[in-house]
Amino acid sequence: MRKFYDELLGLFKEACILDEVNMFLYWDRDVTMPKKGGKQKAEQIALISKLEHERRINPRIGELLEIIRTHKDYENLSDLEKRNIFLIQRQYEKLVKIPADFVGEFSKQGVIASESWEKAKDQADFSIFQSDLEKMVEFNKKYAHYLNPEMDPYDVLLDFNEPGMNQEKFESLVNPLKEVIVPLIRKCSESDHQPNKSILTRKVPIEIQKKLNFDVLNVIGYDLDRGRLDETVHPFTTGNYDDVRITTKYFEDNFLSAVMSTMHEAGHGEYEHYVGKNGRYQPVGMWCSDGVHEGSARFYENIIGRSSSLWKYYFPKFKELTGDIFADVSLEDFVAVINKTEPSAIRVDADELTYDFHIILRFELERDLLNGKIEVKDLPAIWNEKMKTLLGYEVKNDAEGVLQDIHWSDGLMGSFTAYTLGNIFGAQIFDTLTNAMPDWEQQIEKGNLQEVLNWYRVNVFEKGNILDSYDLVKNITGQEVSSKYLADYLTTKYTKLYKLD
Amino acid sequence: MRKFYDELLGLFKEACILDEVNMFLYWDRDVTMPKKGGKQKAEQIALISKLEHERRINPRIGELLEIIRTHKDYENLSDLEKRNIFLIQRQYEKLVKIPADFVGEFSKQGVIASESWEKAKDQADFSIFQSDLEKMVEFNKKYAHYLNPEMDPYDVLLDFNEPGMNQEKFESLVNPLKEVIVPLIRKCSESDHQPNKSILTRKVPIEIQKKLNFDVLNVIGYDLDRGRLDETVHPFTTGNYDDVRITTKYFEDNFLSAVMSTMHEAGHGEYEHYVGKNGRYQPVGMWCSDGVHEGSARFYENIIGRSSSLWKYYFPKFKELTGDIFADVSLEDFVAVINKTEPSAIRVDADELTYDFHIILRFELERDLLNGKIEVKDLPAIWNEKMKTLLGYEVKNDAEGVLQDIHWSDGLMGSFTAYTLGNIFGAQIFDTLTNAMPDWEQQIEKGNLQEVLNWYRVNVFEKGNILDSYDLVKNITGQEVSSKYLADYLTTKYTKLYKLD
Repeated sequence: MRKFYDELLGLFKEACILDEVNMFLYWDRDVTMPKKGGKQKAEQIALISKLEHERRINPRIGELLEIIRTHKDYENLSDLEKRNIFLIQRQYEKLVKIPADFVGEFSKQGVIASESWEKAKDQADFSIFQSDLEKMVEFNKKYAHYLNPEMDPYDVLLDFNEPGMNQEKFESLVNPLKEVIVPLIRKCSESDHQPNKSILTRKVPIEIQKKLNFDVLNVIGYDLDRGRLDETVHPFTTGNYDDVRITTKYFEDNFLSAVMSTMHEAGHGEYEHYVGKNGRYQPVGMWCSDGVHEGSARFYENIIGRSSSLWKYYFPKFKELTGDIFADVSLEDFVAVINKTEPSAIRVDADELTYDFHIILRFELERDLLNGKIEVKDLPAIWNEKMKTLLGYEVKNDAEGVLQDIHWSDGLMGSFTAYTLGNIFGAQIFDTLTNAMPDWEQQIEKGNLQEVLNWYRVNVFEKGNILDSYDLVKNITGQEVSSKYLADYLTTKYTKLYKLD
Repeated sequence: MRKFYDELLGLFKEACILDEVNMFLYWDRDVTMPKKGGKQKAEQIALISKLEHERRINPRIGELLEIIRTHKDYENLSDLEKRNIFLIQRQYEKLVKIPADFVGEFSKQGVIASESWEKAKDQADFSIFQSDLEKMVEFNKKYAHYLNPEMDPYDVLLDFNEPGMNQEKFESLVNPLKEVIVPLIRKCSESDHQPNKSILTRKVPIEIQKKLNFDVLNVIGYDLDRGRLDETVHPFTTGNYDDVRITTKYFEDNFLSAVMSTMHEAGHGEYEHYVGKNGRYQPVGMWCSDGVHEGSARFYENIIGRSSSLWKYYFPKFKELTGDIFADVSLEDFVAVINKTEPSAIRVDADELTYDFHIILRFELERDLLNGKIEVKDLPAIWNEKMKTLLGYEVKNDAEGVLQDIHWSDGLMGSFTAYTLGNIFGAQIFDTLTNAMPDWEQQIEKGNLQEVLNWYRVNVFEKGNILDSYDLVKNITGQEVSSKYLADYLTTKYTKLYKLD
């Protein structure tokens, strides 16, 4: 049986390497490609994608799975090996259900929809995008139908992106969260202790910001012999194992943006650095789910990156690197302002406290669209209404409203939930971490981030995909997944920051 | 028949795109890859190479060729289409003769030999490399035998690298060349007018050199929207059509090295920019041969790049960019020193006049090795002896002697000749150019390089691979290929520079 197992893993590895090559072609497109190289790059990406897909639906995989699962020696496989078989089977069975023609048409419509979305966003006019979005919703419904015609289509999509996830589960997490956070946001906005926002718009020359961001990676311990930091329009992370590249974006009058996006991407990047412990290019040696990935990124960005402990250590160095710009700012004022909270229009710029409402809004709209409760044409009005009731924010136009995200135009539905799941997973894991390491704050204040991050690496990153996300979090924390850890974390943090006692 | 033709060209295109992806993976390895990413990159390169090779020897190609060539409508194909068929067939028939196992073993031994070569070179000790080189010679003999067991093995390899080339042809070019150049070198060395070599070692800060090299590309008209210039240990060019990337290497105490290597690689790069005129990703829309490629590079580097016309125009700008460093140098002294000639050890650093002797030496050694006239173990002694008789140079050790080039360790034999063929082709084409454009010098002196370079683009680059190299040169120049144009060019140039009259 060993030879069938090795053959199967060999086929899987080939698909992974093609994926690696493709990620890297995207990286080049966004970082190093000359201006006019786009057409050729698109052809390269299309070909490698096709070859990868062919490998993932190769009928030989089906044969090998059948041989192995019915083999008399199957039980002699280790748990990790069985998990590999299981994960390959789950992926294979999903992918073979989608007709190749449909994949092609879906992705073609995605290109068209992305173009009309961009135009619509530029002109802040949803009507330009409406009919293409209608098509994308239909494609998503069909996609879900191919995967499982028996199941509620939105549940199918949620499960596809995060195995085991469905509407009921997500609602059972976010409903109690809302109960806590709505009054918390209100109290913060009514507090007398408002941070000094003008600190954030002080101009910091890009050259200084670049040094600062590389230094931040140094503080985290991000290994630049196994990665890079570059600049792009939309920050992202790509690659795995010994070659993980992150990007950031610099604004002269918003230094915090690059610092926080670098920390966020470093969280994604470190995950990829350590995830192969159980076997590189094997399913168990890859990331677990979008939620766990996002949780890692937001752990690095928010829980560590915005902690007062980190800045107690790093603020003097920060001041030194930025010259006189922040000479008059106290540590307390700085920590307060990098954690300021206020209702705002744009998800990617939202603070830690209000962020999840942006996700809840999108979740509710996707759910109702796919279940036919609302229509695409009514989206802008419903969006604006929900922004008012959920966040108390008056949307000014479609560009800062329903058109702000690229996801739907790309064909992605059921993917936003990963951000909030990430916050929930991250806070719950952090709770376990603080119990396991009661002096974590003192360690970080001394500049020793490695003890905390190493705990996270060993307990989360190195586990790879040995369990689905809910089971993984339970395995790490000893508790069922719950949003109460996030609610507690935010309550404690914001009560202190806004002096709500 | 059209659909068979399209299918065939589609298969060819897929192999080309895989080659494009691979070139680009190599570029990343040498330019942007993080230090520890090498192992993963090697796996990516190995996989893409394998997929490309599979496509090139796909039996369907053989079937399609058979169908098309025997089809009643074959004669309706255009000449370009017929040429495409011919070129695909020629490549296919060669590649299918090489057993896949042999390809793997050859390339594995290449990795081993490259390592021992590097060690041998570091220690200037040929004996470390000897047994691996012996194996590489045997692999080359076998390779030639697979391709054509009836033909002299070195002729097979020469023809493989430059269709139509063989020992007799090459000797008939270089023997008359030697007759002219040997006395010319002697006269130059005996001349009273020796250039002031100290100019070349003046220190030019790397930052200034970078600006200078980008400016040189600007003068040439190299389109950086369709390419890049980066820094690497060994300069090279990679890519094609709208994405052609060149690299250079900066030495603080040898500014000329980077400038000339940038011009050289820009010649390669411009070739790739324009070569697709007759159809991108079709055989006719690709480079003709190594010799024509090298000829283009050396045309840009030597014939244009070291011309007094170019520097009459560019020297003031050069002085401006380099500040005070060359304030006291006259144009005449500058042109003299960038064209200085003297026997030297290292091929890649050799000047225009002595360069071909380095090639002739390698040609003679490869020929005698493959024909069994000499043995690997005797190579160092024969190398040193030939350097003395051909160039009057006393080799100090194996590192600057027989171990200087990477080619043999990589398994390449029969490839050095392309450099001298390039010089010969370039000079012959340049002769036609000067007849077609008698005022070329005045144009360049005015800074109008575009008229000359455009002539070259239209008459050489855009022709792609519509004819094999000898026929192409004959088609462009109206004359049979001959080394007399190179002999004349060098005689005129060096007679003037060294005032030999």
